[in-house]
Amino acid sequence: MKITELGEFGLIERFSKKIKLDRSVIKGAGDDCAVIDYTKEKFALFSCDMIVEGVDFTRNDSFELVGRKALGVSLSDIASCGGVAVYAVISLGLPKNTDIKLFDKMTSGMLNLAREFGVNIVGGDMSVSEKIILNSSVIGYVNKKSLVLRNGAKSKDIIFVSGSLGGSIRGKHLSFVPRLREAQYLVQHYKVNSMIDISDGLLQDLGHILSSSNAGAMLYSNLIPVAKEARGLDEALQMGEDFELLFTVSSEQAKKIVRDRRFKFFPIGEIVNGRCGIKLFNQKGRQMRILKTGFRHF
Amino acid sequence: MKITELGEFGLIERFSKKIKLDRSVIKGAGDDCAVIDYTKEKFALFSCDMIVEGVDFTRNDSFELVGRKALGVSLSDIASCGGVAVYAVISLGLPKNTDIKLFDKMTSGMLNLAREFGVNIVGGDMSVSEKIILNSSVIGYVNKKSLVLRNGAKSKDIIFVSGSLGGSIRGKHLSFVPRLREAQYLVQHYKVNSMIDISDGLLQDLGHILSSSNAGAMLYSNLIPVAKEARGLDEALQMGEDFELLFTVSSEQAKKIVRDRRFKFFPIGEIVNGRCGIKLFNQKGRQMRILKTGFRHF
Repeated sequence: MKITELGEFGLIERFSKKIKLDRSVIKGAGDDCAVIDYTKEKFALFSCDMIVEGVDFTRNDSFELVGRKALGVSLSDIASCGGVAVYAVISLGLPKNTDIKLFDKMTSGMLNLAREFGVNIVGGDMSVSEKIILNSSVIGYVNKKSLVLRNGAKSKDIIFVSGSLGGSIRGKHLSFVPRLREAQYLVQHYKVNSMIDISDGLLQDLGHILSSSNAGAMLYSNLIPVAKEARGLDEALQMGEDFELLFTVSSEQAKKIVRDRRFKFFPIGEIVNGRCGIKLFNQKGRQMRILKTGFRHF
Repeated sequence: MKITELGEFGLIERFSKKIKLDRSVIKGAGDDCAVIDYTKEKFALFSCDMIVEGVDFTRNDSFELVGRKALGVSLSDIASCGGVAVYAVISLGLPKNTDIKLFDKMTSGMLNLAREFGVNIVGGDMSVSEKIILNSSVIGYVNKKSLVLRNGAKSKDIIFVSGSLGGSIRGKHLSFVPRLREAQYLVQHYKVNSMIDISDGLLQDLGHILSSSNAGAMLYSNLIPVAKEARGLDEALQMGEDFELLFTVSSEQAKKIVRDRRFKFFPIGEIVNGRCGIKLFNQKGRQMRILKTGFRHF
């Protein structure tokens, strides 16, 4: 049997169920970050992401943006648990004939993003590799009462996204801003029940919230903010790497969020009881067909 | 200019000097681990390592051992700072046609090592990649008074290694035991002035201690424990991936260590004043020529 038959999430589950964890681990593999007991008031968050040439970027991309993305993907994970990112280590796999200019661009993209969000790049590793590979691992902190996971969505919660979706392949997958500020603002001012970042597409990532929360969802096509780069609604639903926050709050909290001027968040639907999947409705209230379910790594 | 002209350590320096760190970072890039302020009594340690198919292992190797190595290299870093390893995240890059058996072997090698040393594997990431890639990032803790870095070697210190060296390519580079127990014992019972793990060869890694400590060293060829797999002294001096501890202590401490029965550590030379490099002497007290200086990644 090949790993493609199990898929990424099947593999993670297969691996995870064999893992033994001690009591200091609040949440192991399976959410955006691991959650570890830290101080009386705070948890530590721990996450890693690998990006690979030919899959996540190409030689024709701006290497400032490639370096930026390598760190940004992990920062986005920290954001989606409601945390602040503090320390990062970076592993680089580089071909021997790599030009020093490419190295400089890549590292300056990383450093600029780190500076922007107050992240300390405290170490790394370098290896020879045929394709360029970048891995970032990030430690963050979150106030215990601000921690948000995927599993807290409740019936009648309103579903929000933090920005427009789709077309990321035509730019945003490299140039996105990890939503750390938005996430901090949210968890400090509102009670967020569940949150994830959109890395595999709205439908797939909403699916993670729903399966973790034992719930279903109704989405309204006319409410979904479609990016100008996107080729229609389908891309906004399916395309990965938007790195926007997807979160749910009670309807009372939702009313306040839509009136809040600090950041614009878009209500796109609501959570319903039971594992009935995702139902999509058009402007006329008619249910629309949902075709596929986002980016598959394997 | 190509990155090979600067080499791994040139690149690390080029990158590191642009990094801004806040006060909670006791030691950033450039040692085996980053050292971060944690509690009143403890520092946190943070380290990452990437291994790549075709460079660090081949398709013909045992994948239990490949998985084991992927985690082991980071545990060895934690050991060499005097710490205990507590949490790990793993990134895997795998070809689409990877057999599930290979995945199972790789992950069970990792899990067994994690269990052996009480390490919690708390998360990970999976990507598609042409070659198999494994990256581990590990968080550890160290008592503040037990922290050992590369930069503490003092004139007249005795230099020790924790086991025989050389020939790692013929087995040990995959099957090594990270010296966490030995390192814990050392830092709990002795005052260790400097320590590193031998990943790039005795001469090169001793070179790191010396340049960080502004010191030189004299080694005695007949004292160097040569592994039975090694093809002579040269391999014991030059070959990387022994993953033994290399450390220095005062001569008073050294006398106690050689009498200590708990673990066998091998005295191989001493630290001298000034940056005079490494001098190697044979049994007759004649200085021997040193040819090259260990494994070069680039």
